[in-house]
Amino acid sequence: MDQKYEAIYKLVLEALQAGQPKKEEDAGTFEIPVGISNRHLHLSQEDLETLFGAGYSLSKVKDLSQPGQYACEETVTIRGPKGEIENVRILGPPRDSTQVEILAGDCFKLGIKAFARLSGELAGTPGIAIIGPKGRVQAKEGVIIAQRHIHMTPDDGKRFGVRDGDVVSIEIDELRGGILKNVAIRANKASALECHVDAEEANAMSLNSLSKIKILGGKRNG
Amino acid sequence: MDQKYEAIYKLVLEALQAGQPKKEEDAGTFEIPVGISNRHLHLSQEDLETLFGAGYSLSKVKDLSQPGQYACEETVTIRGPKGEIENVRILGPPRDSTQVEILAGDCFKLGIKAFARLSGELAGTPGIAIIGPKGRVQAKEGVIIAQRHIHMTPDDGKRFGVRDGDVVSIEIDELRGGILKNVAIRANKASALECHVDAEEANAMSLNSLSKIKILGGKRNG
Repeated sequence: MDQKYEAIYKLVLEALQAGQPKKEEDAGTFEIPVGISNRHLHLSQEDLETLFGAGYSLSKVKDLSQPGQYACEETVTIRGPKGEIENVRILGPPRDSTQVEILAGDCFKLGIKAFARLSGELAGTPGIAIIGPKGRVQAKEGVIIAQRHIHMTPDDGKRFGVRDGDVVSIEIDELRGGILKNVAIRANKASALECHVDAEEANAMSLNSLSKIKILGGKRNG
Repeated sequence: MDQKYEAIYKLVLEALQAGQPKKEEDAGTFEIPVGISNRHLHLSQEDLETLFGAGYSLSKVKDLSQPGQYACEETVTIRGPKGEIENVRILGPPRDSTQVEILAGDCFKLGIKAFARLSGELAGTPGIAIIGPKGRVQAKEGVIIAQRHIHMTPDDGKRFGVRDGDVVSIEIDELRGGILKNVAIRANKASALECHVDAEEANAMSLNSLSKIKILGGKRNG
């Protein structure tokens, strides 16, 4: 009976261990740097010229971590039915569609009901007035709260066991830490490894520009 | 062999199930309402009279969910080394010590480095200037970012399996949901059941005044 007991004990242990992630496959052992976005916007070339004048080109202030992306000297005012916010920074280069990324806390001030969306997924999003030094654009759509996401290359993705379009949870080990669900994986060759959250998410979780996060697990998105 | 296999299978299943929380003990099955705080302050009677005049008494606008607590008509300006914020709401009644609860995002504007602290734990916290219609107070300490917490009675605590001073994690089931760690339990007979987070935490997690959260688990705090 002792021998049988030992055999059963071993099987139970094995079964329990099978449910644990294996150390060498644990994506959580790779730490990912954090980028924090305040409210900002991307402009189409057409809207840029309406706001700043024909043939206008943006002035770069500094490169961002994603290759080719940069913060510009230029800012605009955004105005909703209830109020406006001045000095909203433009990020370059111009894109196909104008996209205004606000904080959830801005919705009340502007009188606009925006939702967490991935960059570029603008169908059905609210519009807003954008006021520049030379003109004004009434965007019919394009206001989003950026859904948190992780930029990476497909090679990074292999390391983490995730693919473009996956949705994962991330773990944040700070006093105000915890786990954020619904973090989108954006994997392509032109990306630098970085987890993007907005200022409110960063403040809520004690994240700063030196913070690192870990991928906890994910689910295939279709 | 088939019989042995079945016995082993049953043992493995039992071992696996032993690791799962039992349904009737799962505190997570009880949902807790959420209260969201914007920046605000509590004043000592002495500071109240310095700011608003001798013998001044606060005017209640509305009762808050915690018995005896209320929002006041009166607001003040708070001023740090780098900037000020106007229209900061006073909550009544007066307390033993003045306490200014700001958002993490206010720190940059004010030029003050505040930290997440429990209400009343003010030793070593930064000070701030408070400007009222009749005078000005230079508080030597008392600026905090409120640590998220759950008010409840000791009877609620028994239901959830927690006690005053415990620290738990909470689960938020929203698009921007997840798990927040380090949520303090504040249990006493004069409390109403409510989880208090600040506006940035609420925005980061898609919480609103109709949201409910669940206690996930905790650890004794000493």
